[in-house]
Amino acid sequence: MRRKKAIVLLSGGLDSATCLLIAKQEGFEVFALSFDYGQRHRVELERARQLATRYGALEHRVIALDLPARAASALTDPSKAIPKDSLGKQAIPVTYVPARNTLFLAHAVAWGEAAGAGDIFIGANALDYSGYPDCRPEYLKAFQRMANLGTKAGVEGRLAFRIHAPLLRMTKAEIVARAAELGLDFGLTSSCYDPSEEGAPCGRCDSCLLREKGFREAGLADPTSVARHR
Amino acid sequence: MRRKKAIVLLSGGLDSATCLLIAKQEGFEVFALSFDYGQRHRVELERARQLATRYGALEHRVIALDLPARAASALTDPSKAIPKDSLGKQAIPVTYVPARNTLFLAHAVAWGEAAGAGDIFIGANALDYSGYPDCRPEYLKAFQRMANLGTKAGVEGRLAFRIHAPLLRMTKAEIVARAAELGLDFGLTSSCYDPSEEGAPCGRCDSCLLREKGFREAGLADPTSVARHR
Repeated sequence: MRRKKAIVLLSGGLDSATCLLIAKQEGFEVFALSFDYGQRHRVELERARQLATRYGALEHRVIALDLPARAASALTDPSKAIPKDSLGKQAIPVTYVPARNTLFLAHAVAWGEAAGAGDIFIGANALDYSGYPDCRPEYLKAFQRMANLGTKAGVEGRLAFRIHAPLLRMTKAEIVARAAELGLDFGLTSSCYDPSEEGAPCGRCDSCLLREKGFREAGLADPTSVARHR
Repeated sequence: MRRKKAIVLLSGGLDSATCLLIAKQEGFEVFALSFDYGQRHRVELERARQLATRYGALEHRVIALDLPARAASALTDPSKAIPKDSLGKQAIPVTYVPARNTLFLAHAVAWGEAAGAGDIFIGANALDYSGYPDCRPEYLKAFQRMANLGTKAGVEGRLAFRIHAPLLRMTKAEIVARAAELGLDFGLTSSCYDPSEEGAPCGRCDSCLLREKGFREAGLADPTSVARHR
């Protein structure tokens, strides 16, 4: 029997790497999809490439994303400061990138339709997250509905698009524990929004603080935190 | 009073040019958005630029779209033949590009959110069209819902995204008549899927046949058809 194929959005961070392993454990063959959208944390893309290779993705694509709204986010505009020590203090943080997940998922649908992969994995998280509207379950459900109405494969019933967000209701500690269980090499992942040139995490952005909290609560050591505290 | 701003998806064809004039007539200031997705009909982009200039768009952007599914469509794969003389004979034609309108609209939302423009005009047509699933009203409605759930501006209530498809239920003849009424210079538009190097329409693809039928039924002459019958 041919195995089902899935698209996994792979940023190179802890969450998407965990998604990759979950998709594989669920029996999917994986197409890994990353985006170059001018993010400051370029080390992500290198980590995504390493993760895709290590965990046997059928193919890894990096799509160049020409974001018209690049200047609106601190993640893509180097003149804006990445907030530090502010986790939970902002409603929707300045690291929000307009319509980012919609663009990511739309590209996944485009590739998935061509490759016969209706299952799309995204590491969105609605619980222990930073407040992004496009990580909420109601958004993901609305996207899935739209994708099935807007594609030839969906309309003809050849392919049902299903957005899998297996981390949606997990705490960061639960994600860390699950990833450890699945054998993720944490050293290959990069979560920081504002890493050094060499890829070392800053330790103070929302993403670093969430990761640190997750490892602490899971009672595990983060191999990447060595660089941070050197 | 400041005028409201809208994003108009401008392909350079007859329908999107008509949308541009409708948006202006409805009082919007217009940001025009085009895409370079490797389409065979490159003359479109030049026409879009001319249309944006002629009709006073605030800005015209051409976004490079890296389509993973490029090979799946005859519109973007030169090794596939553009169907000729087959209007209405295919369920969903091979010129279908996976998730194209979703990607177009997602980029419009991204720019719109950054620019404070929640109104998005698209020349989708569900009546006299070629059978694309992403031109149907139920798809557009689902997209609008998703956009409002997935954006910071939508969630915070600062901007309501509204997808305008003013041509949705018009015949091509009605579109031609409306465009003429609004003073569109038809000679600036290009509809053909398979034009010559110089931009002359082939006269036989679905898009050319629809356009010809529209002008004929509207009782108007198409200035671009001169080149076709030369």
